[in-house]
Parts: sequence; C-alpha cells; structure tokens
Amino acid sequence: MPIITLLSDFGTKDSYVGQMKGVILSICPNATIVDISHEIEKFNVRAGAFVLASAVSCFPRGTIHLAVVDPGVGMERRAIIIKSKSSIFVGPDNGILVPAAEREGIEHVYQIRNERYILPKVSRTFHGRDVFAPVAAFLANGVRPREIGPEIKDYKRPSFTRPKVVKGNFTGEILYIDGFGNIITNASTSLLEKMEVKEGDLLKIKMERTAKVVRFCRAYGEVPKHELLAIIGSSDFLEISINQGNAAEFFNVRPGNKLWVTKAS
Amino acid sequence: MPIITLLSDFGTKDSYVGQMKGVILSICPNATIVDISHEIEKFNVRAGAFVLASAVSCFPRGTIHLAVVDPGVGMERRAIIIKSKSSIFVGPDNGILVPAAEREGIEHVYQIRNERYILPKVSRTFHGRDVFAPVAAFLANGVRPREIGPEIKDYKRPSFTRPKVVKGNFTGEILYIDGFGNIITNASTSLLEKMEVKEGDLLKIKMERTAKVVRFCRAYGEVPKHELLAIIGSSDFLEISINQGNAAEFFNVRPGNKLWVTKAS
Amino acid sequence: MPIITLLSDFGTKDSYVGQMKGVILSICPNATIVDISHEIEKFNVRAGAFVLASAVSCFPRGTIHLAVVDPGVGMERRAIIIKSKSSIFVGPDNGILVPAAEREGIEHVYQIRNERYILPKVSRTFHGRDVFAPVAAFLANGVRPREIGPEIKDYKRPSFTRPKVVKGNFTGEILYIDGFGNIITNASTSLLEKMEVKEGDLLKIKMERTAKVVRFCRAYGEVPKHELLAIIGSSDFLEISINQGNAAEFFNVRPGNKLWVTKAS
Repeated sequence: MPIITLLSDFGTKDSYVGQMKGVILSICPNATIVDISHEIEKFNVRAGAFVLASAVSCFPRGTIHLAVVDPGVGMERRAIIIKSKSSIFVGPDNGILVPAAEREGIEHVYQIRNERYILPKVSRTFHGRDVFAPVAAFLANGVRPREIGPEIKDYKRPSFTRPKVVKGNFTGEILYIDGFGNIITNASTSLLEKMEVKEGDLLKIKMERTAKVVRFCRAYGEVPKHELLAIIGSSDFLEISINQGNAAEFFNVRPGNKLWVTKAS
Repeated sequence: MPIITLLSDFGTKDSYVGQMKGVILSICPNATIVDISHEIEKFNVRAGAFVLASAVSCFPRGTIHLAVVDPGVGMERRAIIIKSKSSIFVGPDNGILVPAAEREGIEHVYQIRNERYILPKVSRTFHGRDVFAPVAAFLANGVRPREIGPEIKDYKRPSFTRPKVVKGNFTGEILYIDGFGNIITNASTSLLEKMEVKEGDLLKIKMERTAKVVRFCRAYGEVPKHELLAIIGSSDFLEISINQGNAAEFFNVRPGNKLWVTKAS
Repeated sequence: MPIITLLSDFGTKDSYVGQMKGVILSICPNATIVDISHEIEKFNVRAGAFVLASAVSCFPRGTIHLAVVDPGVGMERRAIIIKSKSSIFVGPDNGILVPAAEREGIEHVYQIRNERYILPKVSRTFHGRDVFAPVAAFLANGVRPREIGPEIKDYKRPSFTRPKVVKGNFTGEILYIDGFGNIITNASTSLLEKMEVKEGDLLKIKMERTAKVVRFCRAYGEVPKHELLAIIGSSDFLEISINQGNAAEFFNVRPGNKLWVTKAS
C-alpha cells in the first residue's frame, strides 16, 4: 500500500484537504494517506519547508510527499516533482520541497507538464486538488516521474541564513516555533560540539532584546517547572524551552529572528 | 475498500470523532474513513451543508457521506439516508445532506428505522456515534438503504436565497467564508456570463456598509500583495479575496450577509 | 488490519503526529491508524486520561491505544504496556492509561525495556515517536507484550476524588469540559438513581460561586435555545449544558472544580 503524505496551509475547517483526498482515492484507491500538517502559517513557504523536512525521515522508502503552501498559485510558478534517494516529492516550485528532499539527496527534478496526469479542468486557485493530488496518486500507482514531465535543473532553492561559530560565539536564527512554544534554532549538534558545549553547561542565550543564562539539559524535568532550559530537540537542533511552559511567548520571538549563544562559564 | 467521509461540528479536541470511527471500524473493518471537516461552526447546518456540497464531487462513485450538525438531536427530527446518482448520504433530516445530494441528483430518501442497524443503546445526545456511524458502516458492508427503513418523500429541504441578475446588477449573498478569509458568494459562473463579466473587468462589490471596486482576475497574484480582487474559486462561484490576506476581515462580513455586484466600467 | 489509536497533547500544527505515523507504518504497513485527539490541554494527564477512557469502548477487540501526555519525558518515569481484557495500551507510566484500561479490566502491566522494539536512537524529548510508536507497531505485528519487557505491579494509579451522595446531596467534581462547553461531571447514572432523580425533575446545581435550578432532560431541545439543562451525556455521566450554547463559559468553571447537586423540589 503506497503512502502519500499531505502538508499544506489549508487548515482543517474547510473541505480543501478532503477534496484532495477524494481525488487521490479516486485514482489510487489503496493509498494510505497521512496528514503531516495543514496548519502551516498561511503563505509561509519557509515554515512549510521546515515542518516537511522534520518529518520525512520517519516514513518508509517510496513514500510520496505532497506539500502545498502556494502564494503563487495560478501564476507562472511551475509545478514540480523531486525524486530523492528514498522518496518522491510533489508541489509548487517555490522551495517548499527542497530542504526535505536535500536531506535524502536530490536525484532528479521534473516539471509537471503532461495533462494526462492532472484533472481535466484546472481551477485558478486550487492546484493542490487539480494538479498535485492527481500527480501524487498516479505516482503512487507506479507512473514514472519522467512520464509526467521533462527534467529541469533550475528549480528554486530557498536561501536560509547559514549559522556560524566565531571564537566560541554562535550566531544563528530561529527556524521554527512549535505548538509547545519550543524555540527551534539552527544550531546543529555538530556546531554545539564545535563550541565544546557539554550537558550541564550554562549557556548565555540572546534573542531580540532579551538575554538569559540557561542550563543545557538532557530532559525538560532537570529544571523546575516553568523555568528555562536549552536542550537538543527531536529534530537534532538546539531548542530553547520552558519546562511545561512556552519559551517563545517568554522571549516574544518569531521564526527568522536572530539568536546568539555563548558559553556562560 | 468502501470510503466513508465524515463531517461534523464536533471539533477535534474531544473523542467524539474517534468514537464514531471506532464504531465504523467495528462493523466495517476495511472502510477507508476520510474527514471532510469537524470544524463546522457549531449548530450551523447551513455551513455544514455548504462544506459537504463543496467536497462530494471529488470522491469516487459509491462513497458514503456521513454528516452531522444536529441541534435537534434527541428530539423528533428524523434520521435519514439519501441515495443519489453516485453516493449515499447519512445524517439528520435537517437539510444538511440535501445541497450535496442535489448536485448529484437525488434518487430516493429513506428514514432510518430498523434497530438492527443502529447501536443497541442509543444515547440522548450523540446520534453521530449511535445511529449514523453504524448505519454508514452497514451501508459500506453492502446493506441496502431500503433494509434500514422506509422511503419518505417529505424530507426537509433547506431554503436558500436565490441569487438574481436584474439589468446587469447581481443581488445575492455570502455562502461561506473559508479559512483564508475568501468570501464565497452564490454568484455562479453562468450568472457572471449573463452579466457579461470578462476577466480584467472592474466590478463594484457592495457588502454591508462597504463598497469597493475590484478587478476580476484569473489568479490571486495578478494584484499586488494585500490588495482586493474577484476570482472564480475552486467551487466555481465568484469569490472576493485579498492576495495573501483576509477579505472577510476587511469587509467584516459573515455567511448569509447580502452582496451586490455591478460592472464598474 | 490491526487498529492503532493515537492520543496526545502534541497539537496538529507541527509534524509530531505525522512522525509517529511514519514510524508506525514503517514497522506495520497495514495498520489502520485512528486519531482520538491531539488537542489534549498540554501536560494535562488527567484530561488525556478522561478523553482516552471515553473512547475505548467504541473500538473493536484487539485495538492498540497509544496515549502520550508526558511532562516527565526523559526523566525516570517508566514506559509501560497495559494488557486489558480487550485492548492493549502503550504510553508513559503517569496514570494516563489507567482509567481507560480499568474500564475493560486490567490483566497485566509491563515495563518497556527491550531495545529491540524501540528506535535505535531515542531522543530526549519525543518518546511518542522513539519508544511508544514502534512498540505499538510491533504489538500490532503480533509481538507479545512480555517480549517487550518484564511485568510490573507498581504502575502509577491516578487519584481522582470519589463522588459521594449523603442524604440525597451529591458532592462531586467536574471531570471534563468538551468543545461544546458541556460540563461533564463524575455523577454516574447509578448515583443519580440512588438520589432518585427522574427525568423532568428540577435539580439545584452549585459550582464555584453560581447556583442554578435546571431541569433534568432527555434531550437538549426540551428547553428553549440558550437555556440551561441537565442531561445524561454520551459517556453516561450527568452533564450540565446549555441548549445550543456554552455552559462552561456561563459558570466559568474548569475540570477539577467542585460541584454540588440536590433535588430542588
């Protein structure tokens, strides 16, 4: 049973996600459809790219990932398929698929062009249903990406600020804030090793106008309830959290905000 | 694998939707269950009817649609099955099923009466679980609607204001506001043709106390970010939108509000 | 097809639930996964326990229920499996599983210890993905609980206030408030029988600073729209509701608040 995952900024109040699933099941009745999220901040391609990238390694080889945060729908932006080493990605050519596909190794990128694999009537506002859903379902049925359109090389790559460590000082940014208010930074475990940060160390964290010294912990519960800590989160990045509280509200920060980290002792 | 779709105003915080799915899978273990929405505004039968009607054409022939927005639960309102040309609908007899079923052509309507196909103990507050879920699952197992109850003719039809065009002036109303804040009107493409509206035309739109001139576009991106436009949406109705913004908040309108459209030039 | 249900406080904005589903489908591709709720109030084990307990009786024999509201993740709290008469439960040893499992009759409890059945690398913050999801999937594949770890007897039982009836006066508490604002109390139908409460009776309800006399009804619609009533809800407990309104907002109460009920006439 092929797996198709869905990610969008459509929300779950309207029938948009249900419409995509109806189209998929009309073409590939035995697909297992898994929602990753439909509550990406509206039009925020960067947030969609992060959430998709955080999930793909959990899915089995051959999974098809459909992602659509698509402020350019109906304009000249292309619709693409990315074949990576272990998955296939379907969505708009605006960078949303690339961070996830790069984690697995991008092999080929194709532009969706063959009208045989999209709905007969394509609306001006909902390519998730009319283009991406049928393409994902036909791929699940075994259609090869190259039958759906020509290979392209100039797909859009999103530009993210690269984090850096200079003389033990980390400069980076906030990648994402999750529903718990955990602040997910772009400080990877390897960068922290470079800074020689060890568990139990105190870190000075600066975001916007607030600077705090927090302990680098192994578990939320190592600090009292409602206190700040730093921890390696489930995506293998440094996260700033409050034990059973909301760190993003405390610092009043958003994804994209800058972040500085130094060892405090 | 039979498909059963679910629509309700139950929300997703509680276990109500999960309970319905448990009942369905107990009776029809191989059902594919698809959520259309559980975030219909509470007790808003009209909104539920619109969302259901917007989704059904995407599903394959033979799909069973269970919809329950049910302010009259436990009172004398009947429980019904509607057999249309391509689907079967299950829910309360309060009009929620009718607009969707009418799009496909209503063939027969039955009242749910045979206690063999509902749970042994029916609660006073949750017929979604105790009546509609088991009936949908038995239908998915191949039970014929007429085995579940007698045919009726006097099912409840919802009354919607019919839109009209007089001397090129459209008078209608707001059908629905989606999660993006798009204002979905009851101006169909055929009515717009009657008004001789063409892409690129300027339209004067009046809702409540606000009148605006907007361009009738093919894609959101044809106007700058945060500007108003008119567009044929994915349900084939005229929608008033803001490119990457929320038109319903701008106009401060709700479903049911009146709407006037004229050509501006 | 084995059924695995999921309950958590993860929300649906992030990819956490999708990650758990990816892990499950990687191990048990033919699992049917059903979400019970992912919107349990964050860190509220008691609310999670109530919602889980409210749902389990609807699922078929052999269902595996994974529940994770886990403020102690990464600390010394154990991970457990509870085998009840008809289901298997997987989650942290903090009481979340016990009320649901007790309804079915607890047979054996096991501590999750065998590393063969969890992910090779266990994060410090996300045992839902790294421990509970793979264990649930292996159980769905037929692995016996005892292969996953030793039986234990000292699992954590949550302590709830027992309701009591003294001289016809009920003293209890609010178990849960659902998305409609229905106030679900711990007054069971048997306790109401003990108080000799019959339909149509007037009940004096006191919560926090507010006391009201309401009618004990069979259906919401027996009182006018926006009026208070008492009713046996779908979980077989006494609920205080407003017909098409929000009773919890009216009384301004929360789960855990005390409640007094007496017959008013």
